[in-house]
Amino acid sequence: MTRIAAVQASPVFLDRDATVGRVCARIAEAGAAGAKLVVFPESFVPGYPDWVWTVPAGRGAILGALHAKLLANAVSIPSDATRRIGEAAREAGVVVAVGVTERNDEASGGTLYNTLLFFDDHGEILGRHRKLVPTGGERLVWAPGDAVGLRAYDTSIGRVGGLICWENYMPLARYALYAAGVEIYVAPTWDHGEVWLATLRHIAREGRAFVVGCSMAMRLDEMPADLASLYPPGREWINPGGSAIVAPDGKVLAGPIDCREEILYAEVDLDAARGAKWDLDTAGHYARPDIFDLRVDRTPRRLLNDK
Amino acid sequence: MTRIAAVQASPVFLDRDATVGRVCARIAEAGAAGAKLVVFPESFVPGYPDWVWTVPAGRGAILGALHAKLLANAVSIPSDATRRIGEAAREAGVVVAVGVTERNDEASGGTLYNTLLFFDDHGEILGRHRKLVPTGGERLVWAPGDAVGLRAYDTSIGRVGGLICWENYMPLARYALYAAGVEIYVAPTWDHGEVWLATLRHIAREGRAFVVGCSMAMRLDEMPADLASLYPPGREWINPGGSAIVAPDGKVLAGPIDCREEILYAEVDLDAARGAKWDLDTAGHYARPDIFDLRVDRTPRRLLNDK
Amino acid sequence: MTRIAAVQASPVFLDRDATVGRVCARIAEAGAAGAKLVVFPESFVPGYPDWVWTVPAGRGAILGALHAKLLANAVSIPSDATRRIGEAAREAGVVVAVGVTERNDEASGGTLYNTLLFFDDHGEILGRHRKLVPTGGERLVWAPGDAVGLRAYDTSIGRVGGLICWENYMPLARYALYAAGVEIYVAPTWDHGEVWLATLRHIAREGRAFVVGCSMAMRLDEMPADLASLYPPGREWINPGGSAIVAPDGKVLAGPIDCREEILYAEVDLDAARGAKWDLDTAGHYARPDIFDLRVDRTPRRLLNDK
Amino acid sequence: MTRIAAVQASPVFLDRDATVGRVCARIAEAGAAGAKLVVFPESFVPGYPDWVWTVPAGRGAILGALHAKLLANAVSIPSDATRRIGEAAREAGVVVAVGVTERNDEASGGTLYNTLLFFDDHGEILGRHRKLVPTGGERLVWAPGDAVGLRAYDTSIGRVGGLICWENYMPLARYALYAAGVEIYVAPTWDHGEVWLATLRHIAREGRAFVVGCSMAMRLDEMPADLASLYPPGREWINPGGSAIVAPDGKVLAGPIDCREEILYAEVDLDAARGAKWDLDTAGHYARPDIFDLRVDRTPRRLLNDK
Amino acid sequence: MTRIAAVQASPVFLDRDATVGRVCARIAEAGAAGAKLVVFPESFVPGYPDWVWTVPAGRGAILGALHAKLLANAVSIPSDATRRIGEAAREAGVVVAVGVTERNDEASGGTLYNTLLFFDDHGEILGRHRKLVPTGGERLVWAPGDAVGLRAYDTSIGRVGGLICWENYMPLARYALYAAGVEIYVAPTWDHGEVWLATLRHIAREGRAFVVGCSMAMRLDEMPADLASLYPPGREWINPGGSAIVAPDGKVLAGPIDCREEILYAEVDLDAARGAKWDLDTAGHYARPDIFDLRVDRTPRRLLNDK
Amino acid sequence: MTRIAAVQASPVFLDRDATVGRVCARIAEAGAAGAKLVVFPESFVPGYPDWVWTVPAGRGAILGALHAKLLANAVSIPSDATRRIGEAAREAGVVVAVGVTERNDEASGGTLYNTLLFFDDHGEILGRHRKLVPTGGERLVWAPGDAVGLRAYDTSIGRVGGLICWENYMPLARYALYAAGVEIYVAPTWDHGEVWLATLRHIAREGRAFVVGCSMAMRLDEMPADLASLYPPGREWINPGGSAIVAPDGKVLAGPIDCREEILYAEVDLDAARGAKWDLDTAGHYARPDIFDLRVDRTPRRLLNDK
Repeated sequence: MTRIAAVQASPVFLDRDATVGRVCARIAEAGAAGAKLVVFPESFVPGYPDWVWTVPAGRGAILGALHAKLLANAVSIPSDATRRIGEAAREAGVVVAVGVTERNDEASGGTLYNTLLFFDDHGEILGRHRKLVPTGGERLVWAPGDAVGLRAYDTSIGRVGGLICWENYMPLARYALYAAGVEIYVAPTWDHGEVWLATLRHIAREGRAFVVGCSMAMRLDEMPADLASLYPPGREWINPGGSAIVAPDGKVLAGPIDCREEILYAEVDLDAARGAKWDLDTAGHYARPDIFDLRVDRTPRRLLNDK
Repeated sequence: MTRIAAVQASPVFLDRDATVGRVCARIAEAGAAGAKLVVFPESFVPGYPDWVWTVPAGRGAILGALHAKLLANAVSIPSDATRRIGEAAREAGVVVAVGVTERNDEASGGTLYNTLLFFDDHGEILGRHRKLVPTGGERLVWAPGDAVGLRAYDTSIGRVGGLICWENYMPLARYALYAAGVEIYVAPTWDHGEVWLATLRHIAREGRAFVVGCSMAMRLDEMPADLASLYPPGREWINPGGSAIVAPDGKVLAGPIDCREEILYAEVDLDAARGAKWDLDTAGHYARPDIFDLRVDRTPRRLLNDK
Repeated sequence: MTRIAAVQASPVFLDRDATVGRVCARIAEAGAAGAKLVVFPESFVPGYPDWVWTVPAGRGAILGALHAKLLANAVSIPSDATRRIGEAAREAGVVVAVGVTERNDEASGGTLYNTLLFFDDHGEILGRHRKLVPTGGERLVWAPGDAVGLRAYDTSIGRVGGLICWENYMPLARYALYAAGVEIYVAPTWDHGEVWLATLRHIAREGRAFVVGCSMAMRLDEMPADLASLYPPGREWINPGGSAIVAPDGKVLAGPIDCREEILYAEVDLDAARGAKWDLDTAGHYARPDIFDLRVDRTPRRLLNDK
Repeated sequence: MTRIAAVQASPVFLDRDATVGRVCARIAEAGAAGAKLVVFPESFVPGYPDWVWTVPAGRGAILGALHAKLLANAVSIPSDATRRIGEAAREAGVVVAVGVTERNDEASGGTLYNTLLFFDDHGEILGRHRKLVPTGGERLVWAPGDAVGLRAYDTSIGRVGGLICWENYMPLARYALYAAGVEIYVAPTWDHGEVWLATLRHIAREGRAFVVGCSMAMRLDEMPADLASLYPPGREWINPGGSAIVAPDGKVLAGPIDCREEILYAEVDLDAARGAKWDLDTAGHYARPDIFDLRVDRTPRRLLNDK
Repeated sequence: MTRIAAVQASPVFLDRDATVGRVCARIAEAGAAGAKLVVFPESFVPGYPDWVWTVPAGRGAILGALHAKLLANAVSIPSDATRRIGEAAREAGVVVAVGVTERNDEASGGTLYNTLLFFDDHGEILGRHRKLVPTGGERLVWAPGDAVGLRAYDTSIGRVGGLICWENYMPLARYALYAAGVEIYVAPTWDHGEVWLATLRHIAREGRAFVVGCSMAMRLDEMPADLASLYPPGREWINPGGSAIVAPDGKVLAGPIDCREEILYAEVDLDAARGAKWDLDTAGHYARPDIFDLRVDRTPRRLLNDK
Repeated sequence: MTRIAAVQASPVFLDRDATVGRVCARIAEAGAAGAKLVVFPESFVPGYPDWVWTVPAGRGAILGALHAKLLANAVSIPSDATRRIGEAAREAGVVVAVGVTERNDEASGGTLYNTLLFFDDHGEILGRHRKLVPTGGERLVWAPGDAVGLRAYDTSIGRVGGLICWENYMPLARYALYAAGVEIYVAPTWDHGEVWLATLRHIAREGRAFVVGCSMAMRLDEMPADLASLYPPGREWINPGGSAIVAPDGKVLAGPIDCREEILYAEVDLDAARGAKWDLDTAGHYARPDIFDLRVDRTPRRLLNDK
């Protein structure tokens, strides 16, 4: 049995370095509690740009200023921010999956991705996955990613992979992870509620994997006052949380919890999960490769190539 | 607004013609109640061969006898059985989706398929879908189908399609239906319970479609005594039911109901469903066709081809 | 000398069929005035969804309802709407380029594209170009297109092609048109103002082509009242227009005009334009193909392929 | 806020060493005025060979003599001339971009390039860019360059890069700079006038960069009398200037000025520029790397390679 | 012994179709005289744009108008013009090498190449070579070509190849032809005089090939009057000719002739030429491949590639 | 203007030391006449082994005896012979290029090279070039050299380099000198006549360099009687000479002279030569380094290498 953890917490909004501090502290705390995998929410560093749902696209001056702020606090890979997280992972001896807003330093430097970043328990970066399709208002801040990181990583605790928020509604993307043999499937998100929980349970059974749903618990008063003023009055929680951990048979092992910060823990037994594939193995005996020929273009989407 | 119906009922077990009588009666009843679509459970005609989960595969004599019985009561397409159902659909003015066990009359005549059969409201057969992958014990009675019927049909009430039971855990098969523009997605099944309900809700949101989960409510004493005797004592319901209708946002519109026969009804508003695609359209703006190239081989799996 | 026209006009907002009537009338009017090419604004049929700049993405109910309305009034290709426009083009003997919101009937039917549709003077559809990258708020209604229509068409009045609105800020897309030998470059848009005009002039010189910038002149009171109520009071023009026609040397031949509907005309001399390439031919002697190797993937972005 | 400067001035025509003196003096002057970047016109050292537009190619004796004179006054890199400019940059603490005519000392020694030379504020040479395609008559004196210097440099005031004169009409070359993350884009030139200004404004918006257009203000009587006699009488200004500085939204911050020598200044706010990329990032979220695959051959174009 | 011919003649200046008529007539005449190879001057169709040496680059209006005229009379490959020449070659049973100004129909359509076009004696196009480096003023009308056509063709009379005018001063280009085994080396040109003749003789010996120098004999009064007026008075011949045929030992077999139109003939003995390589074979025993490693990039310089 | 000289003279055949005396005398004479560069013929010391063209290779005894004699009179570098020449150069203040037969003292001591030896005006050896490919019969006495000395030397009178006799028909070797910026190109030779003169003129224009062709004027009676007896009767001149000096435009400045010993002089103006590169610079703007990638292996061809 392996203990895994989902950190339902709040960032220091739009402050990368302070938020990385929180990441490192939570890694240490969960590691001390025996966890071998620690998952953080979508865009935890430096916070989820929730304004995309509140500020109309026509208000360019506000959006531009927020974009500059977000760019300045975005995560470059690698950078001091990633080195600090890696160091915390190494010291705690845990695998880490953390959502960040990443800057495209390899090209214009002005574009952001919604990225899921993986570290092994030696603190090395395993890889990064850039969210393939941002949802609705998110398209105002994040660019679509590529399939370079659409994979599962062999770690000391099994094969770990995941998708971000509503990417989890992309059947072909999920199938790609199943075909990669994912055993612990992390789903950092900004979504919550009963339909989202249903999705976590569905995925667990469909993929015969442990699923870790992980979202922020964040109050409105944690936002800068000028941003907060754009919200209707009387709202306390920007996001109540709803993190949960589900077993490969669809049973909920931990959570969901709402309206508080907390680290969820669950014990996972990969051997049992593997056995459950006897009657359903979506990318195995339960597929029809003679009928469905899925081809994934994994080439990086570079903006310029040197010959 | 359009009324749609899911018939949670019991067949006359292993009696095709009597069960077809029940199908026609329920069509008339639902039509009279204003329904424009009526959905029946998986293999409703002539009943779900639940013995595959109870009789060990080593007991060839029993399995052989049951197979002969099932073959004799299977549905040929077309046949009197299908003509009777079509007539009922025409008289009631409803679209019908009904699960049947179908015999491969086009070849050996000794093989069965788990088939979903569609009629339009003029009583014409729209098409049939043979379940692509039978689950676990089902592989003792049903052969795998092909992709000829993996489609959605334009009907008077919108675009209708569906998959059977755990086929609904095949991401690529579901995606094929989304790409066909399915608006009302039927999911006849033998499954039930909270994880299955979670799956119905997930599919509804993923596909931005109305989902009709439809299963039998069947008691042990409706089985022939010799078959029933193979079950452990004290069990009343072979299958309690669990049928439900879900909206494109994942909300449950009707059901689930357990341990009784009943026709579930729900009112569906396709325009609202289409509008909901603004933020999620799995086989539209929320896909990544540049990354995922899914090719479906729709050629019939003929057992012999004339040149 | 050939006369070309840019129609700065207003649609019947969100009413496809009535707007197509206006398109046909304007084609007839311009044809009677001697024009051989008639250009309409971006998404003229059934109007530009300006709400994407005004309604925050978080207001899903409003956006969903508007999406359903827009879907219902979107243009399918081909359809009666396109046949009517083609007929008008044929009768007037003009080439037509018109912006439409197009529905993805080939897949989910729930996704929209911002499409530029070309007709020849026999009324045949030459092709369609789906905008490659919607801008900011537009990403809430339009999906990104592919490169199938990234081309120029040989017509009776020269080689005609174009891009939509801020696509015109994509250097690689423009280059593809130059490499296709575009001579009359149409730029339907929702943008206006002096920087946009500078862009039209730049493109004209860069591409040594005639450039037709064409935008709507539309007042707020032409919107449905419920939509109009979302705008700040005191605003008369949703878009003042700013259409203009520019010569290959960057000189403005007609326009820009603001705050009125009008058909702009200009006389173009393709021979003079071709001669102007002596000192600048961006996709000719002024390129460096030994250094820049641009490869364009023109495969359609299908959401599902039959094998 | 950072102050940047464009020096609209006149060289000591065809006198390299005296012109370098002017360069150094202007660097000191601008540095004293607070500028952190100082840009000089195209081929400022030792002057723009305007005769290529006036002397027909058939007059080889005149052209040969002028070529010898230009060769003798061309800039070798490195050389005393570059050391003097570097020293001035170091003393003033400014980044310098200066257009020079460069001799190919690495090969025949008889060929010239139109080169843009960058110094950092420590006086070190950052790199050089040889104009890729000389325009029209310029092909009589300058050879085409390579892509070695087609880059942006990280400097103390942001990322600086640029192209020379009508190279700015090469979409692929500009795109390469955007992909390199250029923030301050210098455009030394011999062009001027309203279309050129439109181009500067277009580039600023397209690249979301500050653009510094910089040209000479030079009178005919500053040319040697024998050269001046080749011009039609009555012409006072060989080039009136037209230098200007434009913001990333296309607004003109300084200039254009004509018919006088002057140092233009503008204050630039890179953070604001970065934020402006939220709705347009040509080599970021507004690109389509899945469609456009641009490969740049950056190998030096050596005339001979030792093995 | 094989008879070969060089046509020293004048085009119908800037009239492609009439000049093609002259080409065909000369082919017939030479064929009737027993020639098996007929060579025409550089850019014979539709004439050499000699104005590039007379009109300064600054006179854009004149140059632009001339460019348009030249574009309109340029040769597309294939086209009616090439079909007519091919037909003449077939009828006369001769191999033809003819200089043309070619339009880049594969890209912008606005750029021209100085092309040497080869036909076999069945009238089929063997290939085309686009001049690699236009000379001086020529850079105002022709773009640099690529190495696709830098080859020799096996014909019924031996291996034929060639370079255009001052390309013949490119040692590496000549070497490429020697390495291709050229036996009859054609050198269409606009040059003439004793140094050019020395070059023809040098190449003959260096390459151990027969060399056919072929230039126009054209009087000023054959130019349109407006163009002619740009020349100094008193000049009769724009180009006196100077065509000549040289043997592999450097001896002059025919010509040079000046100030008249005429077809030069010479008898060539390829066997003797091959034997002469015993003491000099530049791309054979007289090379030093251990020291000189020449790599030729023969990839087409496409301006855009479909993926 | 600089005066340069070509010494057309005769050696003391096969007598190294006496011939060196003649070299020193001629250097003094030319220096006194104002020359700054003095060029001597191919293998002037100790004479050109013309017997290779007269004695059949089968006559080993004769060839062996002559080889021994030639070895004994060959030049070692450095040696007294080279020191004497250097001293003469220093005293006269001239640059010297002299052809010698060199012995391979660095290895077997039994092999000879046809070497071109350069001295600066301080008497220092600049370098030596060993002929890369001996011609025909020469292969009986000289071995092929390497590319160590394939270069041009910066001297007080410009950049000086050269090749020996028919090496001048090696396009790649000449190109290497052009790429090294050669300005005065020396061509010591045994060839003569009108084709050779054509080659000198061609090279001058091709390389835009001054070319000094220099050959011996030697009578048959200057040979030892036994050698002379091998020649057919009636021949007076073994080599009549034919030395000449040519300008970068191909014009002959001095010579050719035949059948007498004489020092040719010419005045050269390097500035004019450099200007002439405006329209042709073979290893500059008139090259195509993107197409032709020439790699030269300059490693010495050592016969044994210490590790």
